[in-house]
Amino acid sequence: MTEQAQQEQPVHEGGGTADIGVVGLAVMGANLARNLAHHGHEVALFNRTQARTDRLVEEHGHEGRFVPSSDLAGFAASLSRPRKVIVMVKAGEATDLTLEAVAEHLDEGDVLVDGGNAHYLDTQRRERSYKRKGVHFVGAGISGGEEGALNGPSIMPGGSAEAYAVLGPLLEDISAKVEGEPCCTHIGPDGAGHFVKMVHNGIEYADMQLIAEAYDLLRTAGLPVDRIAEVFRDWNEGDLDSFLIEITAQVLQQVDAATGQPLVDVIADAAEQKGTGRWTVQLALELGVPVNAIAEAVFARSTSGHTTVREAARGVLRGPGGGQVDDVDRLVDDVRQALWASKVVAYAQGLDHIRAASDANGWGVDVAEVARIWRGGCIIRARLLERIRRAWAEHGPATLLAVPDVADDLARAQDGWRRTVATAVGTGVPVPAFAASLAYYDTVRRDRLPAALVQGLRDFFGAHTYERTDRPGSFHTDWSGDRTEHPA
Amino acid sequence: MTEQAQQEQPVHEGGGTADIGVVGLAVMGANLARNLAHHGHEVALFNRTQARTDRLVEEHGHEGRFVPSSDLAGFAASLSRPRKVIVMVKAGEATDLTLEAVAEHLDEGDVLVDGGNAHYLDTQRRERSYKRKGVHFVGAGISGGEEGALNGPSIMPGGSAEAYAVLGPLLEDISAKVEGEPCCTHIGPDGAGHFVKMVHNGIEYADMQLIAEAYDLLRTAGLPVDRIAEVFRDWNEGDLDSFLIEITAQVLQQVDAATGQPLVDVIADAAEQKGTGRWTVQLALELGVPVNAIAEAVFARSTSGHTTVREAARGVLRGPGGGQVDDVDRLVDDVRQALWASKVVAYAQGLDHIRAASDANGWGVDVAEVARIWRGGCIIRARLLERIRRAWAEHGPATLLAVPDVADDLARAQDGWRRTVATAVGTGVPVPAFAASLAYYDTVRRDRLPAALVQGLRDFFGAHTYERTDRPGSFHTDWSGDRTEHPA
Repeated sequence: MTEQAQQEQPVHEGGGTADIGVVGLAVMGANLARNLAHHGHEVALFNRTQARTDRLVEEHGHEGRFVPSSDLAGFAASLSRPRKVIVMVKAGEATDLTLEAVAEHLDEGDVLVDGGNAHYLDTQRRERSYKRKGVHFVGAGISGGEEGALNGPSIMPGGSAEAYAVLGPLLEDISAKVEGEPCCTHIGPDGAGHFVKMVHNGIEYADMQLIAEAYDLLRTAGLPVDRIAEVFRDWNEGDLDSFLIEITAQVLQQVDAATGQPLVDVIADAAEQKGTGRWTVQLALELGVPVNAIAEAVFARSTSGHTTVREAARGVLRGPGGGQVDDVDRLVDDVRQALWASKVVAYAQGLDHIRAASDANGWGVDVAEVARIWRGGCIIRARLLERIRRAWAEHGPATLLAVPDVADDLARAQDGWRRTVATAVGTGVPVPAFAASLAYYDTVRRDRLPAALVQGLRDFFGAHTYERTDRPGSFHTDWSGDRTEHPA
Repeated sequence: MTEQAQQEQPVHEGGGTADIGVVGLAVMGANLARNLAHHGHEVALFNRTQARTDRLVEEHGHEGRFVPSSDLAGFAASLSRPRKVIVMVKAGEATDLTLEAVAEHLDEGDVLVDGGNAHYLDTQRRERSYKRKGVHFVGAGISGGEEGALNGPSIMPGGSAEAYAVLGPLLEDISAKVEGEPCCTHIGPDGAGHFVKMVHNGIEYADMQLIAEAYDLLRTAGLPVDRIAEVFRDWNEGDLDSFLIEITAQVLQQVDAATGQPLVDVIADAAEQKGTGRWTVQLALELGVPVNAIAEAVFARSTSGHTTVREAARGVLRGPGGGQVDDVDRLVDDVRQALWASKVVAYAQGLDHIRAASDANGWGVDVAEVARIWRGGCIIRARLLERIRRAWAEHGPATLLAVPDVADDLARAQDGWRRTVATAVGTGVPVPAFAASLAYYDTVRRDRLPAALVQGLRDFFGAHTYERTDRPGSFHTDWSGDRTEHPA
């Protein structure tokens, strides 16, 4: 804090004993507070609507040491110094107001954490702004949903090393553990934590879309829902082992009490989204990183909710004439291969995105560490992540696809992957993410791409010039004249 | 202009005779100036580097009435009132500086045009800012490349109706004509013109990627380049008739003088991009409009230029075991169907994007008019646009796909389209845009989407709730408890 700021802003009363405070006690905030208390920490509590604070203390007060406050001054006074405050409010406009209100009661050296899904540019802006006040601002991605918040999430804090030194031990304490190691690490400066959490969610979008396509193919081929649930349970024993595959089996076996039908047949088929998937794709476009598997997942959600177009198209657009699946067992195995290979592509693209953003921002993100803390607690936790962690710890490949054992497995999976997409296309089942992943695989492995033709066309109509394979420089053909080539 | 502003800023000297001025005399600006002069208009000229102005007058002064100036004060003084100035500079940071410099010499009621590819948000900002000075700011999309600028482009001006009343006749004069009608119309207020031009370019990206995929499939199946040039020439006689198909044939038949090889084999296969394609996808994500065919085209370009990943993947990732095309003639016809159907999807998505942005901004864009002025002069001019114009003039469908005669043609094309994607997938040729378009087609026509499963998963791990098909409201299943359902 500058001298002037110190004169303007007296050090607040305080000297409380709480180790950490939580502001915003909806489910996520309440569960984080309980998790902290379960680990022996004294937890200060504040919520704008007092009733929520009261309910938490009433229902869970016996679980640990909570210090509820009815105003922020009291809340701040109840905290030991340097204060550590986690704000858990719905991302968006309210975030700045809440952070500002809390920060008014903080002093130099205190640590203010935004545990929501903020856009990393907002986090960078906030970090700069609070730094001027001497407050350490930490944008921390927290994944794991309600359950994870209570029993051990994966935590991705950004911000300064000083902030992590103070805050990290507490977060590591409450995070999920895999082989005894906490699923929490210091991701990097300013917006790095929220950026990595955003990409985590982008991968999550892709994972879920791939699962949806797999389900759709099996269902359309005639498998009953409960049989598909079994298939997913079975898949969860192998390479596909992951939280999302596991809960897919559970959702599919759920029967709707009101109708006796599978719940999945009663749920409206318009998927919603909150923003992190969209941001992932928008920022990848900004950085020039191809993330088409993730993008198809985001678009699949918006298409599903595009009621006017779906209503106009349904019944008017015709499906394929023939097309039926003869060998369902082979389809099940092919789809498993497609799901695994496409998932690898989605992860490869997400990791590529993180690397590009880390380079562009000078964050120095350690991808092996990111993979390590994603192995537990978070929504995309999966067996695959240990392979990723190992690959990056060993040699930091240019792409996950080129990691030798991954490339071998992709080679083995590709026939089933290709048959799956061909079957889908022939039977009229939309598989945008399977197809996009396969197209990416076939693009990056290809010796020559028809991008050369695109460059030729661009030079023809826009004189955008092109490069040659055989010598350096830029060239332009005089298309509207004598068609000779000139250096540009 | 406010009274205060008038006091501060005296009306400039003037009373010149030039009908319009052009600032920025690189190829596009110079050609626009010549086009204006060819139509009998007296054209004021200014370029920061005087040599460029001199060269234009020296080489083309005999073509019409040009009034060159060596400074902006002289330039402004040479114009008749209200002044009309078109600024043609490279989009980006320089634009604001140039516009500001020109505007210093403008008076109330003058019209200042940015003819580059600005982001519509920048255009909105500029329009607001210049309105305070009483200057009409017009963001005008101009398509057609150098050739179009000289002989008749398609022009998409935004801005106020007052500005169009003054400027429109001049722009209509120099625009391309189709059936006697100018390819220029007032698109709508503020950023509408640049937005529509941006989507035009997004569709152009898709068109070119689809052409590239078609070429790649035929080439990989063993057709020599000159034979493929013939195929494109042949296609240009039918439904695919368009500028880009026509020039594809020309680029493919071009032989490199240095090597004797087809030029397309000598051009480096990394496609570049300037921003409008990326913006199209970013803004579609913002508005929730699915544009996956366009997105795949943008990603295909960035993948082609992603050297590190391509180098790591090449030689390591394996292609399909078998897979060969037996019936090349059938492939050619199938690919034609795939190209046409995918192109329809890309246009449908682009038009959907324009409609959504027009609704969101209250622009009142007339899609029939947009299609009308895209029929000539611009890069995506194509026979298809007349069908689009007619459909929107008649009934304004929810989606191009559902226009009865389009839906019929898609039904006829789909078998070839599906076979094309299946062949590509089987033979290892990447067709991200063909596949994405087909996936979109199959998604919007489908009765039930697996988005229901996605909603179930989201409710499981994040308590995001879901809607039901059989009654209103939001619902949550207590997944971690007794698995009963409750209204949310």
